[in-house]
Amino acid sequence: MTDDVDDETITLAHGAGTGRTTELIEETVLPHLASNGQESVGLEALDDGAVHDVGDRAIVTTTDSHVVSPRSFPGGDLGRLAVAGTVNDLAVMGATDPLSLTCSLVVEEGTPLSEVESVLESMAATCEEAECAITTGDTKVMGSGEIDGIVVNTTGVAIIPDGEHVPDAGLSTGDKLILSGPVGDHGIALLAEREGFDLEGDLESDVAPINGLVAAALEAGTVTAMKDPTRGGFATAVNEMVRKADVGATVDETAIPVGDTVASSGELLGIDPLDVANEGKVLLGVDPEDAEAVLEAIRSHPLGEDAAVVGEVTDDHAGRVVLDTGFGRRYLSEPEGVQLPRIC
Amino acid sequence: MTDDVDDETITLAHGAGTGRTTELIEETVLPHLASNGQESVGLEALDDGAVHDVGDRAIVTTTDSHVVSPRSFPGGDLGRLAVAGTVNDLAVMGATDPLSLTCSLVVEEGTPLSEVESVLESMAATCEEAECAITTGDTKVMGSGEIDGIVVNTTGVAIIPDGEHVPDAGLSTGDKLILSGPVGDHGIALLAEREGFDLEGDLESDVAPINGLVAAALEAGTVTAMKDPTRGGFATAVNEMVRKADVGATVDETAIPVGDTVASSGELLGIDPLDVANEGKVLLGVDPEDAEAVLEAIRSHPLGEDAAVVGEVTDDHAGRVVLDTGFGRRYLSEPEGVQLPRIC
Ligand SMILES: Nc1ncnc2c1ncn2[C@@H]1O[C@H](COP(=O)(O)OP(=O)(O)OP(=O)(O)O)[C@@H](O)[C@H]1O
Ligand SMILES: Nc1ncnc2c1ncn2[C@@H]1O[C@H](COP(=O)(O)OP(=O)(O)OP(=O)(O)O)[C@@H](O)[C@H]1O
Ligand SMILES: [Mg+2]
Ligand SMILES: [Mg+2]
Ligand SMILES: [Mg+2]
Ligand SMILES: [Mg+2]
Ligand SMILES: [Mg+2]
Ligand SMILES: [Mg+2]
Repeated sequence: MTDDVDDETITLAHGAGTGRTTELIEETVLPHLASNGQESVGLEALDDGAVHDVGDRAIVTTTDSHVVSPRSFPGGDLGRLAVAGTVNDLAVMGATDPLSLTCSLVVEEGTPLSEVESVLESMAATCEEAECAITTGDTKVMGSGEIDGIVVNTTGVAIIPDGEHVPDAGLSTGDKLILSGPVGDHGIALLAEREGFDLEGDLESDVAPINGLVAAALEAGTVTAMKDPTRGGFATAVNEMVRKADVGATVDETAIPVGDTVASSGELLGIDPLDVANEGKVLLGVDPEDAEAVLEAIRSHPLGEDAAVVGEVTDDHAGRVVLDTGFGRRYLSEPEGVQLPRIC
Repeated sequence: MTDDVDDETITLAHGAGTGRTTELIEETVLPHLASNGQESVGLEALDDGAVHDVGDRAIVTTTDSHVVSPRSFPGGDLGRLAVAGTVNDLAVMGATDPLSLTCSLVVEEGTPLSEVESVLESMAATCEEAECAITTGDTKVMGSGEIDGIVVNTTGVAIIPDGEHVPDAGLSTGDKLILSGPVGDHGIALLAEREGFDLEGDLESDVAPINGLVAAALEAGTVTAMKDPTRGGFATAVNEMVRKADVGATVDETAIPVGDTVASSGELLGIDPLDVANEGKVLLGVDPEDAEAVLEAIRSHPLGEDAAVVGEVTDDHAGRVVLDTGFGRRYLSEPEGVQLPRIC
């Protein structure tokens, strides 16, 4: 495992979901692949999914391959991650009622059958929670040593009946930024599990399908933009959202919910919880007039009890996020390089 | 690499697309995952994709992960395979005009960037040929030695405007069986490339998107059933089709198109071309009254010049295929075990 970054070969940093990933996608993927202009949100938008207009409905598609290691961790496992990850990318496009999920397994020869079963069982349970179903799939086997364990791709399709999707680029000045709950749980829980750290307090990954929570938010008021802060964490998501909308934002660091164990272990390990992956959270831009109602709706959902208004969209500092730490102000930077490989 | 089959661990045979794969899916996948009854073709149908009714339209979804080795072979490469495979599974459901393809890459650390580019370039070219577009994707990196090279998942979504899909289970007595061209090219070409065999004659994989050919066939007459004979070859596809429809079939072996090089190398290697994977073919059941028109339409397509009527659906021998070899008759058996790992 190296953290080296060069221009000629793929490095772990290319998979971190941060700067090098974006570079890879913008410089290598986009020059080759281009949507054919039939979409209202195409590949070029680099949003959480694509939106295709069909009559007055919109069809959303999104895909993620899941390579998490270890396959089981406090609070979740590969199967739960695979379903929640895709359900959530649909949800943050405004598509909270999945029509179809796909389940594509690539399995290493020699993997106990019981491990495949346990992944499927967890996928099924998470589908039930998200009120969706896997309707088609694929199974491939690679030789022993050709793949480490099990990789699961889930692709999601959902219809937005009124055709109104929510882009990640829709912020405008004055919008309130609402975060649905504490950040950093998934990344730190996984790191602790992997490295065998004995953290004070219980820490579990937040991995969960949040389509129900998002549906409640959409019901309550005008949501202008959404993103799930997965790889690269809150810091990456909020920066991406302001950059895309060409607006600025101020974020009140003291308002950002962070669990005690995450805060203390982040300090110990020198990791900022704002940089760490989440798998059951959403960051929303909300019309200021509706902010209270939307916050209330999210807090009424079991997965959103700790939701908070964490900031506001501004005219100035376009493309940057000003973090008010309580002691002063600085630009909120994005993590670079490899946070933790195979985190999702 | 072992061919061993036991009940406790995943073997290469579980990925062969034949008996052990079916067993794995029926005994391990289906008990956990079940469609939620909203589909006209759900997971339980084990068809090439799922069909979801939405108003008077139908939405088809299908997915495949591609693990082919080597990534480049005579006639094609991983990128072409990934796009054609998914376009073809949509097409054989009756959905010849893809709305969205997804591109999910899992790449090994240390892979030359140029190799990723070459996969993308080939995907783009094949999309152009199939008149479709990739509209969303994902990129993950696994450590050196954790995955062999590049795995590509493509998932496809297509709308059938009139809602009329074509199942693989729709055969009825009297239907003609039409095969769109010679069998065995993909599997034998890949085997030769991998093992360094110097075959007589040029042999290339048939990998190609056949949605245009299928559209022409559907236009020309009533197609009752379709399947692309990929892993497990023609023998597996035709047996699966008759089993699902609970009908029999007689197939005229001498009518099945097989290229000279495939025939001679098959003989040499002891491999029956009927058992070998194809990646640009379709097997159709056609109303006898329309058989000539459909055959003509397929033959008029550049990818279907050698199409032929190869058999007929019968009342007797339900669930079995009687092969007329020209010298006598026998049941057409299905290949078992590992034909060739990582063939697609
Ligand atoms: N191989 C690829 N081909 C096409 N588009 C890609 C590819 N990889 C990523 N993208 C696009 O780049 C954007 C960012 O992808 P990314 O996977 O980081 O988003 P995400 O799924 O929301 O985040 P995460 O994977 O952390 O859950 C998306 O719009 C995605 O469609
Ligand atoms: N992991 C899985 N989860 C759910 N369904 C699966 C899974 N693997 C396979 N299936 C289902 O089993 C059936 C057979 O799958 P298979 O991959 O053999 O079909 P195919 O894609 O048409 O063939 P090929 O993969 O050779 O191109 C399909 O209906 C598919 O949806
Ligand atoms: Mg996302
Ligand atoms: Mg995602
Ligand atoms: Mg498949
Ligand atoms: Mg198929
Ligand atoms: Mg297939
Ligand atoms: Mg992704």
